[in-house]
Amino acid sequence: MAAEDVKLLSFWASPFAMRAILALEAKGVKYELIEETLNPKSQLLLESNPVYKKIPVLLHNGKAIPESLVIVLYVDEAWPERAGFFPKDPYARAMIHFWSDFIDKKIFEVTFRAAKAKGEEKEAALKELYDNFLTLESGFIKFDAKPFFNGSSIGYADICLAPFVAWLPVFVDLAGIRLPTAEEAPHLHKFIGAIREHPAAKVAFPDEEKLAAFGRILQQRWAAST
Amino acid sequence: MAAEDVKLLSFWASPFAMRAILALEAKGVKYELIEETLNPKSQLLLESNPVYKKIPVLLHNGKAIPESLVIVLYVDEAWPERAGFFPKDPYARAMIHFWSDFIDKKIFEVTFRAAKAKGEEKEAALKELYDNFLTLESGFIKFDAKPFFNGSSIGYADICLAPFVAWLPVFVDLAGIRLPTAEEAPHLHKFIGAIREHPAAKVAFPDEEKLAAFGRILQQRWAAST
Repeated sequence: MAAEDVKLLSFWASPFAMRAILALEAKGVKYELIEETLNPKSQLLLESNPVYKKIPVLLHNGKAIPESLVIVLYVDEAWPERAGFFPKDPYARAMIHFWSDFIDKKIFEVTFRAAKAKGEEKEAALKELYDNFLTLESGFIKFDAKPFFNGSSIGYADICLAPFVAWLPVFVDLAGIRLPTAEEAPHLHKFIGAIREHPAAKVAFPDEEKLAAFGRILQQRWAAST
Repeated sequence: MAAEDVKLLSFWASPFAMRAILALEAKGVKYELIEETLNPKSQLLLESNPVYKKIPVLLHNGKAIPESLVIVLYVDEAWPERAGFFPKDPYARAMIHFWSDFIDKKIFEVTFRAAKAKGEEKEAALKELYDNFLTLESGFIKFDAKPFFNGSSIGYADICLAPFVAWLPVFVDLAGIRLPTAEEAPHLHKFIGAIREHPAAKVAFPDEEKLAAFGRILQQRWAAST
């Protein structure tokens, strides 16, 4: 194989950048992490993701791949020699896509909405999120997750969800999100415990204290916005 | 191959159902179309898509696959003997996912937002949509679309975008959306012309007059909502 040039335009606190790091780590790909300051955005970022101008962007032998879930799909296919991120059966693969989409839209997006909202709107979002966790638990059950959607190794849906776990203490503390209990959602809690111990997460997840401090800055920004 | 049992829970006017029909037609899969009345929702729909309770749902030998883009991915993989919906190269595949996601979020979602909004908010959404069409044109150019993202046959990104074309006269007439001109976005206009003539679209796209009448009902509902 030719020499690989792999760079990741990243920002340490971004859950989306964490997805890209988790994918690269899970595949054992060597890469250079380029930390974006974001203010101002680097010329490299603007050129490599002209549509969204956002991190993460994977640069592989000069080709730019933006968007966290597109990066995870790409990493899976560009380095096929390591354990895949999907099952082989088309129906099981479709269900992984289904649940990954659910995690993106019904867990992450509703969390961000809840974090930014106030009063009744916030309460409604928190209630919706709680119910969505119970629905996600039904997905874990259907996949007989042990402890991951992908079995004992992490795959696409796991990488999609994992950064939520990195942010979980901040979300609970600052945004007031409520998880179902371990009795109500045992698979979800097993996932949370297992992903925290995963070698790829040890690299991808930032220091909790540092993330908490960053979360407080974000909260002040959200509180100041109308 | 065993006898196939393929059913699609559908609603004739739904652009998302049209994606599923386009995928099945492009692959030459024989299927039974089950038209949902939606009010009330059928027991079959509630059971086969308990998470969202929405059409389309593909039922393949008893297995239920919800969500339009998940269905398109599934159809591509479950019937691999016909022309695929993706290129083979991982980078090109990643870019198809990137542009399909753009079409979903930046074309469809912004159109629905523009259609429902009023006053300044509507104007802002229409302007954003116009700019997004120009960005989409840059995607067509990068893929050297002839006339489709997938070349001369339709693929994942094409199927994602195609139902927009079915609804285009309604969107222009009732929601006031503005497309770039054929000079500004020649590939987009070529796509629109080509997809209208595609055999799969002849099946998937409903009668224009009937859709226009349905659009007027929707518009009244949106106008009545605050």
